[in-house]
Amino acid sequence: MIIDLTHTLKTGISVYPDSPEPVFTESATFEQQGWSEIHISMCTHVGTHIDAPSHMIPGAKSLDKFELDKFIGSAMVINCSGLPEITKNFLSEYEKQITSVDFVLFYTGWQHKWSTPEYLSFFPTLTCEAAQWLAVFNLKGIGFDNLSVDAIGNEQPNHITFLEEEILIIENLTNLDMLIGKKFELTCLPLKIENSDGSPVRAFANIPLPLMR
Amino acid sequence: MIIDLTHTLKTGISVYPDSPEPVFTESATFEQQGWSEIHISMCTHVGTHIDAPSHMIPGAKSLDKFELDKFIGSAMVINCSGLPEITKNFLSEYEKQITSVDFVLFYTGWQHKWSTPEYLSFFPTLTCEAAQWLAVFNLKGIGFDNLSVDAIGNEQPNHITFLEEEILIIENLTNLDMLIGKKFELTCLPLKIENSDGSPVRAFANIPLPLMR
Repeated sequence: MIIDLTHTLKTGISVYPDSPEPVFTESATFEQQGWSEIHISMCTHVGTHIDAPSHMIPGAKSLDKFELDKFIGSAMVINCSGLPEITKNFLSEYEKQITSVDFVLFYTGWQHKWSTPEYLSFFPTLTCEAAQWLAVFNLKGIGFDNLSVDAIGNEQPNHITFLEEEILIIENLTNLDMLIGKKFELTCLPLKIENSDGSPVRAFANIPLPLMR
Repeated sequence: MIIDLTHTLKTGISVYPDSPEPVFTESATFEQQGWSEIHISMCTHVGTHIDAPSHMIPGAKSLDKFELDKFIGSAMVINCSGLPEITKNFLSEYEKQITSVDFVLFYTGWQHKWSTPEYLSFFPTLTCEAAQWLAVFNLKGIGFDNLSVDAIGNEQPNHITFLEEEILIIENLTNLDMLIGKKFELTCLPLKIENSDGSPVRAFANIPLPLMR
């Protein structure tokens, strides 16, 4: 079964404070050109997207420099709904499972607030201690159904912690509630933009069907 | 083994005649904001991309309205290098194989001319008869390592033939030469843009065909 984990890109979606909204305009119409075409104006960190190391660390690896299998792997979702923050103590209960996957995704419930003003406030993030603990695992990436791995502000310590280890950060995922307690394959494909510090993605979960008897 | 079938998006790549080139500009820098971010300005049919039915047919289905499994499936490459055009007679030799796949991709050799002036000229396309013959198969999509399923011009008969059947058209693929004679799984993910008539994609081949999906 395939589950789409991607928010639809359109005007009016939640964006990081002070970031420009994406704009989609008709660049060709049936009436004028005989076909339909849209022009896209957006930043690399809009919608469901990946942060590359080069987003936060000068000289670090950009997204186009990773092999494609960096964006595909086994994954799990940790249910963090109701938590004010995600602590090392809470995560340590999942240590064995985290060891066995390529991606750890966090369900906080914020996916349901997408494109409302509430999406930008009070979303739970990892404590710095939890981020440092998690960054030691051999992960391809981590992901969230909310805006950021750090609280909004000038300091981005958790971004640095993960990106220094080349652990990709996926933000603004959705439908994570459908994957709690399941092991699945995550495919999270960015555009292949030269020297890109990030990219909107199309992300999906593939839950293997039970083996035929 | 995973093979990337996507051209890198950057300034100076081949675009359809009279279409605007994609533009990538720095919207944040380490010096000014403390992080790096790119702003993207491009049309939906830039680089390696999919055409949706709504690109050519008023009121037809846009790309965001398809289930995700429309973009994933078994695939084959037909070697058309050296042919001036792709005829029904030539294709009919592959009839049995075409029946067993979701996607048929065509290698014409034009991938090697990408981003040169030669890319825009004399690329082989399907004859109308071949397109009509192929559109009867139960395909999810067809794809090419060149610019278009029709010759450049106002008339787009092959686009209409396939899009009326909701057979997606993938253009500007690369690395198809590596897949001749192989059966593989194609994953070709567009962005999820509301009402989109097309989208740049990230496309890859997975050899051999995974056993479970």
